[in-house]
Amino acid sequence: MTDVYGHTESAGLPEAVHVTEQAAHLLRALREHSPLVHNIINHVATNFSANALLAIGAAPAMVDTAEEAGVFAPMASGLLINLGTLSHQQRDAGRAAVSAASEAGTPWVLDPVAIGALPLRTGFAAELLAAGPTAVRGNASEIMALAGAGAGGRGVDSADDTDTAAPVAAALARETSMVVAVSGARDLITDGSAAIRVDNGHALLTRITGAGCALGSIIAAMLGARGTTSALTAVSAAHVVYGIAAEVAATDAHGPGTFLPAFLDALAGITPEQVIEQARVEVLAAPAPDPQEA
Amino acid sequence: MTDVYGHTESAGLPEAVHVTEQAAHLLRALREHSPLVHNIINHVATNFSANALLAIGAAPAMVDTAEEAGVFAPMASGLLINLGTLSHQQRDAGRAAVSAASEAGTPWVLDPVAIGALPLRTGFAAELLAAGPTAVRGNASEIMALAGAGAGGRGVDSADDTDTAAPVAAALARETSMVVAVSGARDLITDGSAAIRVDNGHALLTRITGAGCALGSIIAAMLGARGTTSALTAVSAAHVVYGIAAEVAATDAHGPGTFLPAFLDALAGITPEQVIEQARVEVLAAPAPDPQEA
Amino acid sequence: MTDVYGHTESAGLPEAVHVTEQAAHLLRALREHSPLVHNIINHVATNFSANALLAIGAAPAMVDTAEEAGVFAPMASGLLINLGTLSHQQRDAGRAAVSAASEAGTPWVLDPVAIGALPLRTGFAAELLAAGPTAVRGNASEIMALAGAGAGGRGVDSADDTDTAAPVAAALARETSMVVAVSGARDLITDGSAAIRVDNGHALLTRITGAGCALGSIIAAMLGARGTTSALTAVSAAHVVYGIAAEVAATDAHGPGTFLPAFLDALAGITPEQVIEQARVEVLAAPAPDPQEA
Repeated sequence: MTDVYGHTESAGLPEAVHVTEQAAHLLRALREHSPLVHNIINHVATNFSANALLAIGAAPAMVDTAEEAGVFAPMASGLLINLGTLSHQQRDAGRAAVSAASEAGTPWVLDPVAIGALPLRTGFAAELLAAGPTAVRGNASEIMALAGAGAGGRGVDSADDTDTAAPVAAALARETSMVVAVSGARDLITDGSAAIRVDNGHALLTRITGAGCALGSIIAAMLGARGTTSALTAVSAAHVVYGIAAEVAATDAHGPGTFLPAFLDALAGITPEQVIEQARVEVLAAPAPDPQEA
Repeated sequence: MTDVYGHTESAGLPEAVHVTEQAAHLLRALREHSPLVHNIINHVATNFSANALLAIGAAPAMVDTAEEAGVFAPMASGLLINLGTLSHQQRDAGRAAVSAASEAGTPWVLDPVAIGALPLRTGFAAELLAAGPTAVRGNASEIMALAGAGAGGRGVDSADDTDTAAPVAAALARETSMVVAVSGARDLITDGSAAIRVDNGHALLTRITGAGCALGSIIAAMLGARGTTSALTAVSAAHVVYGIAAEVAATDAHGPGTFLPAFLDALAGITPEQVIEQARVEVLAAPAPDPQEA
Repeated sequence: MTDVYGHTESAGLPEAVHVTEQAAHLLRALREHSPLVHNIINHVATNFSANALLAIGAAPAMVDTAEEAGVFAPMASGLLINLGTLSHQQRDAGRAAVSAASEAGTPWVLDPVAIGALPLRTGFAAELLAAGPTAVRGNASEIMALAGAGAGGRGVDSADDTDTAAPVAAALARETSMVVAVSGARDLITDGSAAIRVDNGHALLTRITGAGCALGSIIAAMLGARGTTSALTAVSAAHVVYGIAAEVAATDAHGPGTFLPAFLDALAGITPEQVIEQARVEVLAAPAPDPQEA
């Protein structure tokens, strides 16, 4: 398989060990500050995301009417807009929340679940993208569809892989000045300049519903606790912590059912020391634009 | 207790051992093809149904706006319409999905949760019935209410038993050319000609919410993976696999709480060999019409 | 810490041992009658509340459209209105349900989740309060906001403690003739005359989502099973049983994830004898009105 990354040393890139140390630090900061995370999220994942946020040490709130979302977003430390079961009510709430969050400086995350083939959410994802999220998280197909480079996956499944999406993600990040996270067996997080690969995680995450959605919530929590740390590092830290927790949980699980409680336990129990020991992070130059495109 | 079945040998009936073998075969086919199952389902069971589908090896999607449901249904291998918390949005989505599924030839399942006493869903169930589902699944009271033969149960509880509902189910199946499944302590699945009794299952299924609803999703998955197998056998296979998984889970559970993860583990771990060994299936002639009614 | 209670003996107060015995009795009655509990509840907690009701022995139903809620409420033994993710649909359903419940004499519980800062639910909570619930359950900040005495908490978190809210709760109970329950590390339940403190519970309840919401459902179930027992005792019994189940579950849990199934198991397994042995109940005179306010 051809590697799509430059693999050249670059003086401007963060070091992997630094990313790992910052992930441990942010986990500590998250637990100290317990950021309030405002979630406008699909009704499949709402319970699991709330429990994941509580487990790791954040404070979840699910407020998704237009009347209340605009009032609540500025009180929150982070906001997630997940399009998984987008209704008209949630669309109105999302608009109000994003507008209020932008004004208040609340960082916000867009999770464009299953866009591409589905019309309501695809149009709304484009609208939200133009409003300038702090970060976007999706699988390879979702990120490619968001960038207008793919046809989307089969519902929530990805038809593409992370390496295929990497140059698209990097170009999207450069164009929009946001952090783009492509989650999968291997995660890629990029700000258009650096690309951080996270190899933590476990296949059982693909056998439970809402695993990607809850990761979006944890990203919003990390952004809410990041202080002066870069958004690129904070989004990567969320992937590292989440992935290590999955690895820990898998050792206790007998299948996807027992993985669920074990994973929440692991999110609650993971220590900064474990993060430093178990993180598998690589920092690379973001894939350059295709010369033919440039 | 008077048996309502004919118990006469009939050359036209499938043999129980054949149903069992087909159930094992369909479980294998389901895991190989991972059918995409479109669920328009109540918000109590949505997470559990998605996890049950993932556990057994299918791919769940919950798409319930009218704009998107009509686009998504033709992409899916099976569709479930569950009326458990029917909203106006879900009703519009259900209409769009059923119309698109019918045109595309996607098999679809109706689960008329708690109809009878409740007006919005009772009217809509009649409308959907006229649109020709591939199969209907409900408890005895729900099936009787759907056939216009009963007053409905107490919400999701059944006030009637499977044997009382059997002749009504058989008549309904004959009239509509669909498969009718009456789930309960003992399940009855009929196409109006044959009646398959499934004795697998466990009482803990009645102590967790959404057990019947997730069975509806698994039926849609089995229909989506059935190939040339009859719908009668595919719906019965879903009951067999689901019931055996419950029996396996119950041996690990200390109550309804620990039953939940154990059941998802069992759905993920059940093998075709276990299906053949543990299936408790009986094939009978469907109850004949009451001579006074005929 | 200054105690806000009178701590004076009063001939009119129930004895703690009597409350405990009644709690054991009501648990038995609940399991015998399996009260049907109608929940209009937020979409984060709906699955967990339904499972908690099933576990303890009640029959849950989630019916939240206006067309159906008004029809269903009179069939139920108890009704809960929880404002956690109040939509316009749920508001209409709540109005219809409350009106029908009041006419039918169905006891009903208001859970004013996160009111105070959020406009839609705060206005609706005031409207429902005027309709005369049998009981209200909230954390200290929510009860203070309901009484017009506080600014509300940070979403679902309480910014105030039970002792601060105690005199406000007692005044509210006197004014409205309902039972007011302030849930927290220590619970306070008052009818304006007596105040029952319940010390059962466990900190893990604050690390899972919907713990307070499911308690609201259990309160509605206890009210539905109470017969001639006072509402004050029934609401207190719900807190006692719930708190003991949490203590039992915590001994089996390795974190919030494994606490969830263990807690449902404990709700299913708790015996009247355990209630009598493990209840930690204190009965006091309700805090008198502040002389400066009177």
